[in-house]
Amino acid sequence: MDFKIIDGGVTAAKGFMALGKNCGIKIQKKDLAVIYSEKPAVAEALYTTNQIKGAPLIVTQKHLKNHMAQAIVVNSGIANVCTGQKGISDAEETARLAAVELGVKKEDVLVASTGLIGAYLPMEEIRNGLKGCKKELKKDSNDAAEAILTTDAGKKTIAVKVGNCTIGAIAKGAGMIHPNMATMLAFIATDAEFNSEQLRKMLQNAVGVSFNALSVDHDMSTSDMVVLMANGMAGKADASLFQEALTYVCVELAKMMAKDGEGATKLMTVHIKNASSEEDAKKIAQSIIGSNLVKTALFGQDPNWGRIAAAVGYSRASIDPSRLSIWLGEERVVEAGKGKEFNTANIKKIMAADEIRITVDIGVGRAETTAYGCDLTHDYVSLNTAYHT
Amino acid sequence: MDFKIIDGGVTAAKGFMALGKNCGIKIQKKDLAVIYSEKPAVAEALYTTNQIKGAPLIVTQKHLKNHMAQAIVVNSGIANVCTGQKGISDAEETARLAAVELGVKKEDVLVASTGLIGAYLPMEEIRNGLKGCKKELKKDSNDAAEAILTTDAGKKTIAVKVGNCTIGAIAKGAGMIHPNMATMLAFIATDAEFNSEQLRKMLQNAVGVSFNALSVDHDMSTSDMVVLMANGMAGKADASLFQEALTYVCVELAKMMAKDGEGATKLMTVHIKNASSEEDAKKIAQSIIGSNLVKTALFGQDPNWGRIAAAVGYSRASIDPSRLSIWLGEERVVEAGKGKEFNTANIKKIMAADEIRITVDIGVGRAETTAYGCDLTHDYVSLNTAYHT
Repeated sequence: MDFKIIDGGVTAAKGFMALGKNCGIKIQKKDLAVIYSEKPAVAEALYTTNQIKGAPLIVTQKHLKNHMAQAIVVNSGIANVCTGQKGISDAEETARLAAVELGVKKEDVLVASTGLIGAYLPMEEIRNGLKGCKKELKKDSNDAAEAILTTDAGKKTIAVKVGNCTIGAIAKGAGMIHPNMATMLAFIATDAEFNSEQLRKMLQNAVGVSFNALSVDHDMSTSDMVVLMANGMAGKADASLFQEALTYVCVELAKMMAKDGEGATKLMTVHIKNASSEEDAKKIAQSIIGSNLVKTALFGQDPNWGRIAAAVGYSRASIDPSRLSIWLGEERVVEAGKGKEFNTANIKKIMAADEIRITVDIGVGRAETTAYGCDLTHDYVSLNTAYHT
Repeated sequence: MDFKIIDGGVTAAKGFMALGKNCGIKIQKKDLAVIYSEKPAVAEALYTTNQIKGAPLIVTQKHLKNHMAQAIVVNSGIANVCTGQKGISDAEETARLAAVELGVKKEDVLVASTGLIGAYLPMEEIRNGLKGCKKELKKDSNDAAEAILTTDAGKKTIAVKVGNCTIGAIAKGAGMIHPNMATMLAFIATDAEFNSEQLRKMLQNAVGVSFNALSVDHDMSTSDMVVLMANGMAGKADASLFQEALTYVCVELAKMMAKDGEGATKLMTVHIKNASSEEDAKKIAQSIIGSNLVKTALFGQDPNWGRIAAAVGYSRASIDPSRLSIWLGEERVVEAGKGKEFNTANIKKIMAADEIRITVDIGVGRAETTAYGCDLTHDYVSLNTAYHT
């Protein structure tokens, strides 16, 4: 590791400040965040591939046409999705209001929303919330990290130092999460100097092995995005070191989301080896992390490898059943496609842990991949039974 | 409807008998069934598309090369999957033992198993269970319908009369069910006379709109099959009337499975209208019935149409968000891609019912389809947390 993990979140890098507060969308809980850079920053974003996209994504995409941004306004509680032209106007008005308060260009304000689909933003509350907000900005992102949460159990922040530069981030994500860019909200800020092409490429690389390798519940959101802002205030950084650090930041945030998956008690890490192609490796990994039966087995601390084998079989990847091997932790449970006697005491310990590593050797090629998921529990059902009303 | 629903199951048609008993795979519960035709029958089967297939499927496929069968042996409790060459030998031995007892050719005995993956069949118990079984055959399939169940809450039987001919069936299926032929066990017997090509085509037609339009938990089994036997003892039947009746039988069995989905309290019927192609209509329907968030909303009697819209959006079908309409029962909740005020009292009644009909008008073409699913409940998690050990 050529970088150092430090305290802090999205305000860790030079020139970034943030605020988080309640503006009245939710009762009492924080629901509005602003992230601000002293200087206009080069910015790139990746969005959900869901064809039904929230209004904030449409506005953010438009405002990022010049690859520059200076602020992000995020609200939780209401997603502003399926809200037609009024939803778009509301998102634009949110950016305009923030721009006036912060003294920046409207086109340099990005917007993001997360929460219930189908409701309109309460613009009066947002207007009041943003009023005079510049003086509420702090060199601390704990409030902002809290204000962007929905069903998340806890805040997700991370920061690393790479050379003279710093990368800091906050994120949210606990449900409606299934791989395919970008399945949650993550805001990453750095003081390193890169042009937008470099930035975009590095973000794509990092997201490919982190957020796109994550599934909580197989449901892909309409609202989610990853934004990376680089204001250049710490000067140039070594691109390959920076990439390594950025990828680390994204993988750690993805793991935080999986661990904090709605109702989850366990992080599941699935490592696929020797698949015939990377695409196939990903298909198999996503098939396993997406399987309700594998997920309930983990919750039950049950070494039911048959469900893993079944998920490999329906992944549509090229496989040979007679070459399949499966490990739970360090314990091999399937060899040459057949069950293998295992050490029951060891397996018991492995299945009881908070993190369970599943390794599957497909035995037909050399491609590999890693994906992240969680167990399926009574609390997931409870949380999602009651969310709307 | 040019056919009549009658009492009975897989033994309703002329010449078919069955038995169901405990042979010792499970404790006390029935676990072994035999279905028998007096005369060799033309037979066709469709199987799971899971690449990891149970040994019984491999043996049944081999025995059906001549398109003829006279008996089916089914056990529940152990699926005989991931059991290598020994698994295949065990399945063959099961067919041989039944053939000797029934006085038929070994190649005319089909085998099917359902239950735990990775365990070997207890051949001693199966041998004892089959011993002298011919005299246990009855013109009643209740015991057989019970013996093929695993986590099912109840038996699934149906019979219809079409002209002079009869179609009868038993089935099982409550979990590891996701569209893609054939995701459960169903045994259909008729005394109509058809050749194997006709039979296969009619079976494919019926399965396409029934079992392949069903999802309980997005997990595709390794073991499941649909078998249709036609012994011709009632003579020729009108093909189009017979097709109608056969499709009805399969659709009703699929609905029984959805209703009896593991832990389910509600049947979800999803009807997609005006999609751009049948393939797209199916993608959208499966996306909705497979969504954990839609399923938990139904359990919570929550009219959370945003989750339905999100599932439409990530289905990868061709859509236009601004043309989308959604109905819950008769109540329209989305129009032109936006939420619509609805009658709360009506919606409350609709969401409280045992069967919930979701209609989605895509508004971009003329293709339509119907799919069947169920809600996701605490009991699903409980059942699958404890199934293995």
